[in-house]
Amino acid sequence: MALNRTTSMTIKVKRLEGKIALEEAVGSPYFVAHGTHPPTPMIAGMKDGLPPYNIPFLNDIDDRLNDVGKRLESMNASGIGYSIVSLTCPGVEGILNPDEAVDLAKKTNDAIYNAYVKAHPTRFGFFASVPMQKPKEAAKELMRAVKDLGAKGVLINGFTNMDPNDLSSVRYLDDPECEPFWQTLSELNVPLYLHPRIPPLNQQRIYESYPNLSQAAYGFGVETAGHSLRIICSGILDRYPNVQIILGHCAESLPFLAHRIDHRMAIGVAGNNGPYKKSVMYYLQNNFYATLAGVRRESTMRNTLDEMGEGRVLFSVDYPYESNEDAADWFDGLQLNENTRREVAWGNAKRLFNLQ
Amino acid sequence: MALNRTTSMTIKVKRLEGKIALEEAVGSPYFVAHGTHPPTPMIAGMKDGLPPYNIPFLNDIDDRLNDVGKRLESMNASGIGYSIVSLTCPGVEGILNPDEAVDLAKKTNDAIYNAYVKAHPTRFGFFASVPMQKPKEAAKELMRAVKDLGAKGVLINGFTNMDPNDLSSVRYLDDPECEPFWQTLSELNVPLYLHPRIPPLNQQRIYESYPNLSQAAYGFGVETAGHSLRIICSGILDRYPNVQIILGHCAESLPFLAHRIDHRMAIGVAGNNGPYKKSVMYYLQNNFYATLAGVRRESTMRNTLDEMGEGRVLFSVDYPYESNEDAADWFDGLQLNENTRREVAWGNAKRLFNLQ
Amino acid sequence: MALNRTTSMTIKVKRLEGKIALEEAVGSPYFVAHGTHPPTPMIAGMKDGLPPYNIPFLNDIDDRLNDVGKRLESMNASGIGYSIVSLTCPGVEGILNPDEAVDLAKKTNDAIYNAYVKAHPTRFGFFASVPMQKPKEAAKELMRAVKDLGAKGVLINGFTNMDPNDLSSVRYLDDPECEPFWQTLSELNVPLYLHPRIPPLNQQRIYESYPNLSQAAYGFGVETAGHSLRIICSGILDRYPNVQIILGHCAESLPFLAHRIDHRMAIGVAGNNGPYKKSVMYYLQNNFYATLAGVRRESTMRNTLDEMGEGRVLFSVDYPYESNEDAADWFDGLQLNENTRREVAWGNAKRLFNLQ
Amino acid sequence: MALNRTTSMTIKVKRLEGKIALEEAVGSPYFVAHGTHPPTPMIAGMKDGLPPYNIPFLNDIDDRLNDVGKRLESMNASGIGYSIVSLTCPGVEGILNPDEAVDLAKKTNDAIYNAYVKAHPTRFGFFASVPMQKPKEAAKELMRAVKDLGAKGVLINGFTNMDPNDLSSVRYLDDPECEPFWQTLSELNVPLYLHPRIPPLNQQRIYESYPNLSQAAYGFGVETAGHSLRIICSGILDRYPNVQIILGHCAESLPFLAHRIDHRMAIGVAGNNGPYKKSVMYYLQNNFYATLAGVRRESTMRNTLDEMGEGRVLFSVDYPYESNEDAADWFDGLQLNENTRREVAWGNAKRLFNLQ
Repeated sequence: MALNRTTSMTIKVKRLEGKIALEEAVGSPYFVAHGTHPPTPMIAGMKDGLPPYNIPFLNDIDDRLNDVGKRLESMNASGIGYSIVSLTCPGVEGILNPDEAVDLAKKTNDAIYNAYVKAHPTRFGFFASVPMQKPKEAAKELMRAVKDLGAKGVLINGFTNMDPNDLSSVRYLDDPECEPFWQTLSELNVPLYLHPRIPPLNQQRIYESYPNLSQAAYGFGVETAGHSLRIICSGILDRYPNVQIILGHCAESLPFLAHRIDHRMAIGVAGNNGPYKKSVMYYLQNNFYATLAGVRRESTMRNTLDEMGEGRVLFSVDYPYESNEDAADWFDGLQLNENTRREVAWGNAKRLFNLQ
Repeated sequence: MALNRTTSMTIKVKRLEGKIALEEAVGSPYFVAHGTHPPTPMIAGMKDGLPPYNIPFLNDIDDRLNDVGKRLESMNASGIGYSIVSLTCPGVEGILNPDEAVDLAKKTNDAIYNAYVKAHPTRFGFFASVPMQKPKEAAKELMRAVKDLGAKGVLINGFTNMDPNDLSSVRYLDDPECEPFWQTLSELNVPLYLHPRIPPLNQQRIYESYPNLSQAAYGFGVETAGHSLRIICSGILDRYPNVQIILGHCAESLPFLAHRIDHRMAIGVAGNNGPYKKSVMYYLQNNFYATLAGVRRESTMRNTLDEMGEGRVLFSVDYPYESNEDAADWFDGLQLNENTRREVAWGNAKRLFNLQ
Repeated sequence: MALNRTTSMTIKVKRLEGKIALEEAVGSPYFVAHGTHPPTPMIAGMKDGLPPYNIPFLNDIDDRLNDVGKRLESMNASGIGYSIVSLTCPGVEGILNPDEAVDLAKKTNDAIYNAYVKAHPTRFGFFASVPMQKPKEAAKELMRAVKDLGAKGVLINGFTNMDPNDLSSVRYLDDPECEPFWQTLSELNVPLYLHPRIPPLNQQRIYESYPNLSQAAYGFGVETAGHSLRIICSGILDRYPNVQIILGHCAESLPFLAHRIDHRMAIGVAGNNGPYKKSVMYYLQNNFYATLAGVRRESTMRNTLDEMGEGRVLFSVDYPYESNEDAADWFDGLQLNENTRREVAWGNAKRLFNLQ
Repeated sequence: MALNRTTSMTIKVKRLEGKIALEEAVGSPYFVAHGTHPPTPMIAGMKDGLPPYNIPFLNDIDDRLNDVGKRLESMNASGIGYSIVSLTCPGVEGILNPDEAVDLAKKTNDAIYNAYVKAHPTRFGFFASVPMQKPKEAAKELMRAVKDLGAKGVLINGFTNMDPNDLSSVRYLDDPECEPFWQTLSELNVPLYLHPRIPPLNQQRIYESYPNLSQAAYGFGVETAGHSLRIICSGILDRYPNVQIILGHCAESLPFLAHRIDHRMAIGVAGNNGPYKKSVMYYLQNNFYATLAGVRRESTMRNTLDEMGEGRVLFSVDYPYESNEDAADWFDGLQLNENTRREVAWGNAKRLFNLQ
């Protein structure tokens, strides 16, 4: 064994097989699931009518959202044994007609079940889509999807559009009307993945002129962390303490911020910020899971592990918006002890979703 | 030396003397510096006309904003040798009449200089206030404050109100009109402290019903990180690469987020998100400093040190909104090596502000 | 709630109740368990016949080694709900007559069982002492202690003296004669706590003139890490892969060193350094637990958590050589997420020892 | 920009040019510098007369110890701009005849100066070898090497053999006879690199049967950390507070251990463990530098940065015993902020050695 070699300026990664990923998007055969349905502009500050991202990228995404064969091939190349797929953002939440939302949620759940879970039961599970435009219907569809189709939980893309004529009229999950949904979620004891959505058009002032900031680059995280804080403040997690909410992107910066949020909330008049009973940090450590979807930075991951514990951090990718291969190369190559790596790669997910 | 004792359930802290603090607020004798001037509502969702924080807290703050003796006493008890004070938030940025803003900025700078710096030159420096309603006047006042009054830089409270009849009409620092200000800042080679401000009323939808979320608890950070990203995207830091921007609260979560922001921005059409030339991480490591103001959590601090390096992290408190004593007890008691502790406590600040 | 206070220069700690501690020493009614039996000098370089530690300290230790009431009082004050006690170092391993070792091991196990476990079953468990001078007898006594007395495992104080006339003649646990012991340990599926011992007199050259270095300050760790590496190299853990070895003091620096050790061992001629099959890091993560006994430094603990995972780190004190109260104040006050804190405080121990 | 690709299971590393390395070994034209001179066995437990490492490895080392062209080629491929070379271990310290040691130290310094520094002044500096068998001569040669040859300091390979007939008769640097050496070192204000050496044969009991453990895998670190503690305890660093000692391998585990060492030393009778005045942690943070030589593990590096600060950690390799290319691939690819990376890569070294 000689020690010297001509460098290839690369670090070899040993592939870790059997990883589980759970922020993995698919398309719907029934409608164009990204953007609103029917389409409306979603991003302020577009220049010359151009979308802020590039066309080859978008075409590549569309292709991979729907091609099961390519997805399996990519999972195989990345050591991802099992994916829990879900309808791409914002999906049903962006359907402007409530009755259509109810109808398309069902059809989409059936379609995803058939194309992924039934066809490849050892490789795919799915999160149900639900029509939060009508929370009782959402509860019903969640029940059906879990009981009849074996859904592993539900994924909601942030707020739900409530008025076809006013895109700023939206529903967050702390709306008291959502109670039947939370009740059913708690009864079924399955997790909710709270997925980001681009902030409503009338809330994008801070990002204007730099359209990508409204999206995954920054606005996604703010919108989703803010939404999580609304849910916390509303007291839902006190009424349904077994509810588990999964956040992507290392919990959208809440691990970094929770201590300070609690510190400043404590100064308020008790009860004036909602009826929540415990600290944001408490809920973060007891009612939330963080996935690594979209994160490939060690210090961010460490901050998340530090604040949530290794039992609440889960591998994920965000395919096809992120590359399975890149995410796996990063994760598999981390200088992380193998016990923690296994928990994050699959151990925690197996317990959370009752997988074998 | 016996090893056993009846526990007092406390950890003793050895006081570190000579710390420098730089997010330290004072009042103005010329106007009520917090809120807008004249006053307007700033927070959505207030309940029963009650402010979301408690009255004894507010009275205590008002008292301490203006009492120099109490401030010095508290600094002495906390091992803070030197404070760089500045007008409390939003100060001049919240003056609805532009000409009044120009006038009151000057008067306030003179007053702060006299009451703090001239009276206690070994204990206080100050950051100038400037009227960004009129950027040329802001540049002029910055020049005067630095040259004539020895200001250590300038502190700006986020956006500036631009229309007394429309509180949503605000100016961020990437507004091309601000160019004279940046030019002067670069020439003088003094730093800008970008202080948080509550988001404009029409941008608080995500926080409604939970008013404290709009403020220091969460909205402050989002508003200020978003503002920083606007400045970055605008290319200002490419045109003035020596500009240094100080952010409080461990850089408002940018250390946690920068890697992902860069990753997603890279997908955009080049140039469509502003003419910036480098990565957000690059600017963060070369044009930003982070203070510990308002942060008392180790993992948050570690993430900041990890991403910015120990040369760009600065102790601070946010007196009187935070307790000097509590901040010092936390910082002085950290199990941190003394070399890094000294750099954060005063070493970096001495170099940045040319202090002895 | 006013934010300001006169500092007391202390940080308040909220006591965490229910912690489990497992490097907790007790005396024997049958012999002076520390030092050899009969006594011989153990430390090189003593000056003017003085022991290198102070007399009040030693008297305090002797008192507390044997006083069950004081111990319980201290546990109560420290939030330690349950202690697994063991005979103080080197105990039976320092008995120079092998037959006496066999006899006194049994008597001591009975005595500790009666005074602690039988008298206070909800507060105490114990690790058996075994006479490694005669490994078959050790295996027999381990079996009896576990089956009849409910011992939670066994604690061995490093090497065992083998010749009353030659103190440098010692047995390490990789000695092939120890096989019956390992076989029984594996069958019983209980852990071995490998406790430090001062290196043999003839191996203390590096410490001469500075006697404390031979002991807990430094020599303890080197001796115990070296012993662990012998066990690893010998292939014992390949033959008995279910064996679990507990090390104190954050695993005696092995988390810091394991990666480099593996890197350099790989250069050797295969098999020339023993028949072990995997990497030191592998064994560390699969066959070792680390306790915090004697460690009160965050970065050391973090390095240990980083390399072993939060499932293999256990709270402990080393009472009466360390203060329960100080250890608890440090641990309970750490800015650590509560999930990890609970695992380290008791979760891992409950699983390892099948406690309720 | 498409996001998907067929994985190559590698992570690309961007080469960082201009790194400085300082634990870089060269041979001597005057004697076989490794092992003692004349040769004696150095490792216990060799099996069947075989050395514990492999022959192709050894041949490769010998070749590269002396080939300047290959060294430069490897430095170029690794982004190492400047190396401070030194005679390989144990070099002059292993010369059994004191007068020969004095003679060969001089000759070797001249030879290294000529072959490396004079021939390639922009690429190489060197650490002097000194004959500690005769400390006055060592001081004299150190003076000459620094003043006449521009040596950047001195490197000593642990203990020095003192008796050709008794290999266990060795001198550590706390020997009072070494005073002239320390005095000169302090006057010249250049650092000492304390390099590991295999522990003396009679101190290898703990490693027997597993010969590699005595060496770089484990024994090296114990020997060198122990030696450092002797120097600390002796009070040398109190008498010469400007002395700076460089340790390889992330300071040989002292960052992990220093807090506990101090804690236990404090129990001793004052003065009985040497006349040192401060804490081990204090010396570590004020009189020691740590290099990354031989370390390629992030958590180990982080523990070192945590305890010593980023101003006291220096890149290095240990060529030819380690691969420049592998060390550079690891270091250049670390997810470390660029400010800290630059300080470790060259910033700290430039200040310590007054390089441009």
